[in-house]
Order: sequence, then structure tokens, then C-alpha cells
Amino acid sequence: MELTAGQIATLLNGEIEGDNDLKISRLSKIEEGKTGSISFLANLKYESFIYETESSAVIVNKTFEAKKAISATLIRVENAYSAFTQLLEQYEKIVKYNKSGVEQPSHVGAGTSIGTGGYRGAFSYIGKNCTIGNDVLIYPQAYIGDNVRVGNGTVLHAGVKIYDNTHIGNHCRIFANVVIGSDGFGFAPQPDGSYRTIPQLGNVVIEDHVSIGANTTIDCATMGSTIIRQGVKIDNLVQIAHNVEIGKNTVIASQTGIAGSSKIGENCVFAGQIGIAGHVTVANRTQVGAQSGVNRDIKKEGLSLNGTPVIQLKDSLRSLAVLRRLPELERRILELEKQLKDNIH
Amino acid sequence: MELTAGQIATLLNGEIEGDNDLKISRLSKIEEGKTGSISFLANLKYESFIYETESSAVIVNKTFEAKKAISATLIRVENAYSAFTQLLEQYEKIVKYNKSGVEQPSHVGAGTSIGTGGYRGAFSYIGKNCTIGNDVLIYPQAYIGDNVRVGNGTVLHAGVKIYDNTHIGNHCRIFANVVIGSDGFGFAPQPDGSYRTIPQLGNVVIEDHVSIGANTTIDCATMGSTIIRQGVKIDNLVQIAHNVEIGKNTVIASQTGIAGSSKIGENCVFAGQIGIAGHVTVANRTQVGAQSGVNRDIKKEGLSLNGTPVIQLKDSLRSLAVLRRLPELERRILELEKQLKDNIH
Amino acid sequence: MELTAGQIATLLNGEIEGDNDLKISRLSKIEEGKTGSISFLANLKYESFIYETESSAVIVNKTFEAKKAISATLIRVENAYSAFTQLLEQYEKIVKYNKSGVEQPSHVGAGTSIGTGGYRGAFSYIGKNCTIGNDVLIYPQAYIGDNVRVGNGTVLHAGVKIYDNTHIGNHCRIFANVVIGSDGFGFAPQPDGSYRTIPQLGNVVIEDHVSIGANTTIDCATMGSTIIRQGVKIDNLVQIAHNVEIGKNTVIASQTGIAGSSKIGENCVFAGQIGIAGHVTVANRTQVGAQSGVNRDIKKEGLSLNGTPVIQLKDSLRSLAVLRRLPELERRILELEKQLKDNIH
Repeated sequence: MELTAGQIATLLNGEIEGDNDLKISRLSKIEEGKTGSISFLANLKYESFIYETESSAVIVNKTFEAKKAISATLIRVENAYSAFTQLLEQYEKIVKYNKSGVEQPSHVGAGTSIGTGGYRGAFSYIGKNCTIGNDVLIYPQAYIGDNVRVGNGTVLHAGVKIYDNTHIGNHCRIFANVVIGSDGFGFAPQPDGSYRTIPQLGNVVIEDHVSIGANTTIDCATMGSTIIRQGVKIDNLVQIAHNVEIGKNTVIASQTGIAGSSKIGENCVFAGQIGIAGHVTVANRTQVGAQSGVNRDIKKEGLSLNGTPVIQLKDSLRSLAVLRRLPELERRILELEKQLKDNIH
Repeated sequence: MELTAGQIATLLNGEIEGDNDLKISRLSKIEEGKTGSISFLANLKYESFIYETESSAVIVNKTFEAKKAISATLIRVENAYSAFTQLLEQYEKIVKYNKSGVEQPSHVGAGTSIGTGGYRGAFSYIGKNCTIGNDVLIYPQAYIGDNVRVGNGTVLHAGVKIYDNTHIGNHCRIFANVVIGSDGFGFAPQPDGSYRTIPQLGNVVIEDHVSIGANTTIDCATMGSTIIRQGVKIDNLVQIAHNVEIGKNTVIASQTGIAGSSKIGENCVFAGQIGIAGHVTVANRTQVGAQSGVNRDIKKEGLSLNGTPVIQLKDSLRSLAVLRRLPELERRILELEKQLKDNIH
Repeated sequence: MELTAGQIATLLNGEIEGDNDLKISRLSKIEEGKTGSISFLANLKYESFIYETESSAVIVNKTFEAKKAISATLIRVENAYSAFTQLLEQYEKIVKYNKSGVEQPSHVGAGTSIGTGGYRGAFSYIGKNCTIGNDVLIYPQAYIGDNVRVGNGTVLHAGVKIYDNTHIGNHCRIFANVVIGSDGFGFAPQPDGSYRTIPQLGNVVIEDHVSIGANTTIDCATMGSTIIRQGVKIDNLVQIAHNVEIGKNTVIASQTGIAGSSKIGENCVFAGQIGIAGHVTVANRTQVGAQSGVNRDIKKEGLSLNGTPVIQLKDSLRSLAVLRRLPELERRILELEKQLKDNIH
């Protein structure tokens, strides 16, 4: 991308102070800017950077008053932070999601319909009887099985694997090498010590505006559906087992695992490397700290939890503080025992 | 799939009570059934569902006596649970593993032999001098290196990567994006602080009836073989390091990791997110709780373990119970110290 | 590979004792050797094996004095261990990284330049305006986006996904299904409880001699670069979040996760399943035990840490030892309370 400072000012409905024709090719943090960068200053805590920045242009609030000379061209807007975010989003559209057309070879099965717009990369595979919406980007080496539905504006990155019968909503982003709809982990023990596979015949349903990070796995239901509700954001390397349901707008950080049949509420926030046992229910707005283990139902909404097994965050922090003084505690107990023995008997 | 209730009754050697020509297109839990579904009732704890179900047909035990009117057609069999399982398995064969033939483009290297039956999807790759058995399903974008052996009836799902010299037995299922035979993590520290790669020249041997979940990784041995014995079931996102050996019928849940050269016994059950250190031996029938850490040999068979590092499950549960009372314990010690000071001196 | 014992002796600058024409086709541990194997004996702790080994040849130190009859042909060298390592490296070059040429179909975008030598497997994809060095091996189904740079001698294994604008140095090894440059996990909460995606517009920079294990994910920076310095070794299923920087020669074992914007020093050693919080700084030469949680800056260099949250290893081991005696400690406190009550009042 290369725009002039003037074009950006027009885009952001801002006023320019400096060189209208300045060429901008990059967005940078104000402390990392170089010639050709545009940055922003919203929080005056970082004001000193604006007097030293090498960025060619800086977006500032209309109310900003410089205390020293500034070499960068300024673009004054109502709200510098949201203007910069708007610029980031424009820039993303131009540089990240700009693919179109069909590259060959790519495979489309019989009975599959594909909407207008969109992109299909080389070595991508779409099975039979699928319904693919408009403006869907399917990157190279992505795989879509049979009877899959994908909504409008959804992006399937390189190497994504979508099993048969999966439903994916509109405006989802599924990142590279994600696997959706693989078999749930269900085996029935046999008298001879071996296990018999329990067929996994359900599917996965993903609603709109869901984001799923690279190499994450979401298993199909044994029967029925594993369900990811609208607006859920899932990070990389997360495991979602069969028959799980995740409520609207819940956020799940990397390497967390949710075991079979658990029901997670809306607007929960799960940090990284958490384990959630099977068949538990977690209430709305539950927050869970990193590496915690949730082994029971969380019925009250809005709790902050931590630890294995989870307890309330503030109790967990107190326990952890004592934990590191355990050897000292043991010495104190021993000392008490000695004193008591010496003094009483 | 669409069968009549009569066809299903014949298949299950059952007797029909109701509409012989009823069309069945789906298997459902009794509480989730809709028109066209078939369900089952085995445990009378769930009996109330049969009077309310929308399923068109329900499989019940021969001995079942209805206490109210039932709208669904009944199929009476000796054992409703195992009849339903049998139906699931039939259904799975029909709807899940029904691919055949060869899609193009797909790659087969010189000197490779492929048995009869089976399926090779588009963009699948098989290297040189491989021996692929009969009825092997190789999904799109799967990769098989050189000198690989794959037994009869094995399924390699989309995007699976099998490195050179791997041996895979009969009737295994390897799910999407699994990596088998990648380099073990071995580096020799050098005097200048850098590391020199220790070549990893062994392979992976997987016996019959093994299941490996999506995005799991199994490294090749440094020399010799990493070995997964018959009937082992491995979930998604599991890490098996170089030179590990896993005994017959052991089950490993998601996100567990087993470090280099450890030997795991038969019929063990490992929950999710467990870490097992390198060079340890774990006895047969060991059970380990989720998020535990096994850092030493487990010599006695059949123990239930938990915690980091693992101790016996019942001891671990007691310790965890006290753990959350630690702040209170500390206060009690302080109180004792005060009392002793006040009273004795 | 098939070499004679004589050829190997010449290669290693050693002296042969036995059959010069012996055919060697395999490298084995001395206790696992078979006819056709070559092994080594360096540590005399394992001396007994040399009298029983079935290996056809054994590399020994010049100074080795046999105490019994040995059936294997001996190759005497200055240092048996490093000679064997040298042989492993030669063998690796011959058997593991021996691909060349271009298989079709494979995709190369406009404006991309590819150096001499090297390999491109079938169904591999290279985007536009990339610069690929000499002797780069790109295995089947690997994906390289636009504007990517890959240095000389680097290996991209099957199914690797490299996003746009990534820079990879010389002599790196990226194993199967690794994802580099996927979006960082950044979302801004909105008043209605939903989240707005923060565009991730930075890239990933990987310096020379870096190794990245199968199914690992490294996210691009929000702005700027996620940086993996020279000589870093990363195991399988590791998560590196956006804007992380990892110092030279740091080693990270499997299933560890490093959250956004953290800066890791040089020559650190991280065991498996560790979690490192976002925005922390970890000093050079820090060692962290398996399953630990690093939730704060580690400022002093060279510490050995363990636990969640991490404390010094020796303190952690003491605390863990007491942890399993917690129920006993609680009983002792109760006993003290009773005694005090009985005796004082």
C-alpha cells in the first residue's frame, strides 16, 4: 500500500498540518516508526515519543498541543486511537484479504454451489453438495468435506480441514491448519482390555463472526452438534471436544482444552493452558486464570477463578502466597511442638 | 442414508411394533429426536423421555413394558444399547467411510505398491517404495514419505503427514493434520552456547487398531523406533517424543505430552494435559488425572495417580483440599505461637 | 545407504580391525545392533555390550582394550562418540535430505525468484514476490504466502504454512504442519459484549539455524515483528504469540506457550508445557521446569525456576515436598491446638 498523507487525512476526516503529498507505506508504533511510517499519539503518557519519532506522519487528537518542535506531518482527528484503528482495518482489507479468482488445480465436488466474489487457491478441495456463500476466501490446500455450509465473507486459511456436514456462519476466520469436525474421542472398554470405537456421527456448528486460531481442533458431536456460538474467539492450539457448546462472545486463549459435553456460558474469558473437565457447566461471564483446572459446575455468573481445581481468584492468590512459605510453616509447627513438649510436660 | 423401520428391525434381528414402512434418516438421542429419527431406550432412568420423544422410532429391550401411550414405532431387541451401537457402526460405514477410487491430481512415487479397494483423494502424495494395503482410505492433501508401510483398512484423513520409513498397521485411524515421524528434539550444546542438531535417524512403528487424534505429533526415534502398540487410542494435540513406547490398549486424552524415551505400560488411562517426563517407565494399568506431572518411574501396576508431581489420587485429593485452606492454617499457626508465648513465658 | 566398513574407516580417519569389506546399512545402539549395523562404544560403563553385540561393526576409542573376544569388526578412532556423531550427520544428509528437482503440479506466483539447487514437492505453493534462496527444500503441500523471504539451505517440511511477509533465515528446519505468521489474538471489547478484531499487520522474522517442531504456531506481530533469534530450537505444539521476541540459542520444549509481547533472553532452557504470561521479560540463561507458570519479569540471569507461579527451583522442590504432607500438617496443628487448650486453661 502507498497512500499520501492527504489521502489518509481525507479517509479519516482529519486536518493535515504539514506535507500533503508525503508518501506513507507502513503503520508503525510511534516509538518504532521510520521514514514512510504513519503512527498515532492518543495517550499523553507517550507524548515524549512524538518529539523524537522518525515516523513521517502522526495522527493526533484535535485538542493536542505540541510543547516542542515536531518533524512529522500531523493529521488532527476527533479521536486519534479510533482513527488509527479505522486505518488499520482499511489497511488490512487492502493488504491481507485481497485475493480473488480461482487458481488451478483446485477441486470442487458434484452438487456444490459457490457464491459470487471470493477466492479459491490452488490445491484447495471442496467435496460434494456443499453450499459456499459469497466472498468466501478459501486459501491453498484447504479441505472441505461433503455437505458443508460456509456463510458469506468467511475466510478459510491455508491447510484448514473441515469435515463432512460442518456448518460455518458468516464472517468467520479459520486460521491455518485448523481441524473442524474430526471424530470425538469415544471408546467403549471391552472385556479383553481393548476398546471399541463409538461412531461419532454428529457435526460441528459454528455461528457468525467466530475466529479460530491456527492448529486448533474442534471435534464433531457423537450425535447432535458441537456448537460454537456467535462472536466466540478461539486462539491457537485449543482443543474443543465432542458435544461441547460455547456461548456467545466467549474468548479462549491458546492451548486451553475443553473436554466432552461441557457447556460454556456467554462472555466468558479463559486464559491459556486451562483444562475444563467433561460434562461441566460454566456460567456466563466466568473468568478463569491461566493453567487452571475447572473440574465442576460453575453456577454463579461473573466469578473470577484460578487454580487447580479452581477456587475464587483472591483465595487462590492467598493460597499460592502461603504455598511458597510451606517449608517455613512446617518449621514453625515443629518449633511449636518442641516448645509445647518442653514447657508443658 | 434412508432406511425403513422394517429394514432396521431385520438388520437388528428385532420385532417391530408400529409402522413397518416408516422412513428413518437419522440417529438421535431420545430427548433430541425429530421426525425421521431413530433413538433407543436402555436405562429406565430415562423412561420418561419415551412418552414425549419426537423420534419416529425407538429401539427398546424385549422386556420393556410401557406405562403410558407411546407415539413412536418400537423395535424390540434383546439388548437395546448394543443394538443401537450396531446400528451406529453400520451407519458410520455408510455415511463416513464411503469414499472409493482415485481423484486427480494425486502423486504416487516409483516403486510404490497399492492394494485393492481404497481411496486416494486429490492432492494426496505417496512417496517412493511404499507398500499400501487393501482398502486404505487416503484423504485429500495427505502426505506419505518414502519407504512407508500402511496396513489394510487404515484411514489417513485429510492433511496427515507421514514421514519416511514409518510403519502403520491394519485398521488404524489417523485424523486430520496429524504428523508422524517428524524429528525428535535432540540437540547437543556447544562450547559457544549454540546447539548442534543430533540427527534423528529412527522411525515410528504403529501397530494395528490404533487411533490418533487431529494435530497430534509423534516423533521418530533417534535410532531404532518410537512404538505405539496395538489398540492404543490417542486424542487430539498430543505430543509423543522420540523413542517413546506406548503399551497395548493405553488411552491418552488431549494435550498430554510424553517426553523422550519413556516407556508406558499397557491399559493405562491418561487424562488430558498430563506431562510425562523423559526416560521414565510407567507400569501397566496406571491411571493419571488431568494436568498431572509424572516425573519418576511408576513401578506398581494399577495405581490411580494425580498431581504435580503425581502421588496417589486419594492423597492428592486430601492435599488439594488442605491447599485451599492454607491461609487459614497459617493463621492458626500464628495464633498458636501467640498463645504459647503469652501463656508459657 | 550401504557402505563397507573400510569406507567408513576412511571417512572417519580410523583404523580397521577385522573385515574391510563388511557391508554396513544401518546405525544402531550397541545393545540393539543386528547384522549390517554399525554401533559405537565410548563410555566404558557400557563395555559389556561390546562382547555380546550383534552389530557387524563397532567404533571404539584408539585406547580401548578388549578384555574378551569380540565378534564385531572394530574401527578405532580418536574419539568414538564424535566419530559416530559425524557418521550420523553424513548418513542424515544421504538418507533424509536427499530430494531435488521440481514435482508437478506446484505453484509459483509472479515476481518470485528461487535460487539454485533445492527441491519443490508436488502441491507446494509459493505466492508472489517471494525470494527463495539456494538449496531450499520445500516439501509437498507446503504453503508460502506473498513477499516471503527464505534463506539458503532451509527446509520447509510437508504441510508447513508460512503467511505473507515472513522472513526466514538460512539453514532453518521447519517441520510438518507448522504455522508461521497467523494472526495474533487481539480483540477489543465492545459495549454490547462482542469483540472487534484488531488487525494484525506485522510479520514474523526468523533468523538463521532455527528449528521449529511439528504443529507449532508462531503468530505475526500486531505491528512490527515477532522475532525468533539465531539458533533457537523450538519443539512440537508450541505457541508463540504476537510480538514475542526469543533470544539467541534458547531452547523451548513441547507444548509450552508464550503469550503476547513477552521478551525471552538468550540461552534459556524451557521444559515442556510451561506457560509464560504476556508482557514479561525473562533474563538470559533462565531455566524453567516443566508445567511451570512464569507470570512476572525474571530480571536476574541464570536462575533455575519451577512451579506456578515460578520460584527458585530448590524452594519449589521444598514446597512440593511439604505439599504432599499437608494433611499431616493440618492434623499436627489440630493436635497442637488441643494440647494447648487442655494444658493451659
